[in-house]
Amino acid sequence: MAHSPLVQNLVQSLCCLPGVGPKSAQRMALHILERNREAGAQLALSITEAVERVGHCQRCRTLTEETLCSICRSKAREDALLCVVENPMDVMAIEQSGEYRGRYFVLLGHLSPLDGIGPDEIGIPILLDTISNSEVQEVILATSTTVEGEATAYYLAEHLAPLGVNVSRIAHGVPLGGELEYVDGGTIARAFAGRGNFS
Amino acid sequence: MAHSPLVQNLVQSLCCLPGVGPKSAQRMALHILERNREAGAQLALSITEAVERVGHCQRCRTLTEETLCSICRSKAREDALLCVVENPMDVMAIEQSGEYRGRYFVLLGHLSPLDGIGPDEIGIPILLDTISNSEVQEVILATSTTVEGEATAYYLAEHLAPLGVNVSRIAHGVPLGGELEYVDGGTIARAFAGRGNFS
Repeated sequence: MAHSPLVQNLVQSLCCLPGVGPKSAQRMALHILERNREAGAQLALSITEAVERVGHCQRCRTLTEETLCSICRSKAREDALLCVVENPMDVMAIEQSGEYRGRYFVLLGHLSPLDGIGPDEIGIPILLDTISNSEVQEVILATSTTVEGEATAYYLAEHLAPLGVNVSRIAHGVPLGGELEYVDGGTIARAFAGRGNFS
Repeated sequence: MAHSPLVQNLVQSLCCLPGVGPKSAQRMALHILERNREAGAQLALSITEAVERVGHCQRCRTLTEETLCSICRSKAREDALLCVVENPMDVMAIEQSGEYRGRYFVLLGHLSPLDGIGPDEIGIPILLDTISNSEVQEVILATSTTVEGEATAYYLAEHLAPLGVNVSRIAHGVPLGGELEYVDGGTIARAFAGRGNFS
């Protein structure tokens, strides 16, 4: 190892980031040290602050440093709509589409019995409790289309039915701008099964 | 923006890393906050320590928190050989090959007059001074094969000649395991121009 201990520590710590291997970690370390120490110091500060102060929203469980996140606090949101997603990134993706104006509930995972993740671990009792004490009329299930995501959606649908709310699932099919020849068979099958009248 | 201010700060700070765009920064931020706060805290500490304490080796200019780096301090290195590279990553790459046992000099850049980077900015006076006061017999130019790297090599060769040291350039050609059909024309031309007797 030609790197000095502190540089080596930095490279190793950067490897903890997802998608960063030893080579990119080295490139990042040298970028910080050679070109942008100020941004590096700022990054260290941002990490420390976030790690120490960011927790979960008490209502929707997304990441926030406040008791309630900005969406839960907002009065402009429709209380009748609740979208259930797996993680805070999904909230961000849906917000960026600008289409949805309801509220959210973040499971922070999906059912995965083999890993010991059951309904309690992903906050389903809290979700059911929230819904039965609220004006929610429709729950939109937006868990992912993996086996676990689908299983979670089925489980939720089953337990939401007795509460008398409408339960819907976001549509799955060919993405916009997607050319059929590059779309996988499973997606095409879903697109056919879910076809609607041409209006 | 659905992220809370602290999460948003973290995402923006992560964007300062090379090769990290808004999407990967978001993924990294959530990875730190959801799965690995301990590694995040450690990363912040490593960055702070490195940014505050790592400087350049007084002899070879590579990154180190000591006055002299481990290679310059080592007594097992050949003093007769000096390899000139553009940045500390190149030192690391050469060290990993395990082939070279001499010493290094890191330019921390390459000649680029349009950006105001002349011989003084990349430490050429220091290099020439070091060589004239030492036992160096051969200087191996390992600057990159970009236009600037080649120009830097030519400039160095010209100014090293009067000092009476041998000046060599690392070989350029087809990489090991490289199939000719995937190698670019410039590399093939260099491989032909630099061909040697088959032994």
